[in-house]
Amino acid sequence: MKAPTSLEFLTEALRRLPGVGPKSAQRMAYHLMQHDREGASLLGRALSQAVERVRHCASCNTFTEHEVCETCLDPERDAGLLCVVETPADQLMIEQTMTYKGLYFVLMGHLSPLDGIGPRDIHLEKLVRRATDGIVQEVVLATNFTNEGEATAHYISETLKARGLKVSRLARGVPVGGELEYVDAGTIARAMLDRRAT
Amino acid sequence: MKAPTSLEFLTEALRRLPGVGPKSAQRMAYHLMQHDREGASLLGRALSQAVERVRHCASCNTFTEHEVCETCLDPERDAGLLCVVETPADQLMIEQTMTYKGLYFVLMGHLSPLDGIGPRDIHLEKLVRRATDGIVQEVVLATNFTNEGEATAHYISETLKARGLKVSRLARGVPVGGELEYVDAGTIARAMLDRRAT
Ligand SMILES: [Zn+2]
Ligand SMILES: [Zn+2]
Repeated sequence: MKAPTSLEFLTEALRRLPGVGPKSAQRMAYHLMQHDREGASLLGRALSQAVERVRHCASCNTFTEHEVCETCLDPERDAGLLCVVETPADQLMIEQTMTYKGLYFVLMGHLSPLDGIGPRDIHLEKLVRRATDGIVQEVVLATNFTNEGEATAHYISETLKARGLKVSRLARGVPVGGELEYVDAGTIARAMLDRRAT
Repeated sequence: MKAPTSLEFLTEALRRLPGVGPKSAQRMAYHLMQHDREGASLLGRALSQAVERVRHCASCNTFTEHEVCETCLDPERDAGLLCVVETPADQLMIEQTMTYKGLYFVLMGHLSPLDGIGPRDIHLEKLVRRATDGIVQEVVLATNFTNEGEATAHYISETLKARGLKVSRLARGVPVGGELEYVDAGTIARAMLDRRAT
């Protein structure tokens, strides 16, 4: 007694999704076949369409359906500023602050030697070409303040400074609304070192 | 600034999978587009193929690509015995015990009035037709020993006994290898009531 071939094939394929193990792949396959065949068809079409249409912006590397994305084509933006982020979601967070009017470069990840993710995987050559176009004046590093994000920022900073570019990093410090009693010591130490005249 | 349409469509479609919220749908979509387009195509094909090919066995209701599944067609099995289980996975567990040589009926779920899952959703009419074919002598209820499984067993038992069928239930008791100190009181109470002469 075994599962029908196409159901086994579906269960195997669902395991390609990050965070989906054998048990949840089986649960998903059964759920779709039993309760949501329309959803299964829809997801099938969405996958084919995305594979066909989604590519990386030739300029900033984010996902787009065009050669160059809308943000990069926006003439209102300051082309002398280039902000480097790990993901499109990070870019969206910065956009929502309304404090930045320059352009972006999206790494689509961070360096992580232990996972085999090196400079090629975060499109470093493409970033160097982009940043040395003669128009960019300053590169703002906005990778995460995690170990990997900091290492990535450090690596990019060294690479770009060697090419004579001005490189900056988002300020670290006590979060807005943060109570010192509940902020970790490392953050407070950093805020002390980076203290500013008032 | 917004995500490309086909990427948004994919993220929405991934939310049709059980247990996938907006954050993990986005993570999955980005992962596939960034690191595993082959996996995305494969999953797309697997979904279309499964929707097209997988159906329910006309006899036992399990998933199959044929009109009647292999198990139901096996002439070696005792057609007088019908074991009712919630899922194909439960059926597989029982097969692995090598203690049962009859046929099966797979409910594909259990009664759960709070979730709006009633007798129709567990194919009760189909089960009644199957069990009253004149060949089945005894129906063995092997739904789970959860609240919903017990309620389902009770409901099916009443329905089938009203039609003059012999209905039994898997025995409850202390698990093999179970130490009384670590078994819950309800299980021990049940084992005491169902005690057998040695
Ligand atoms: Zn772009
Ligand atoms: Zn069958």
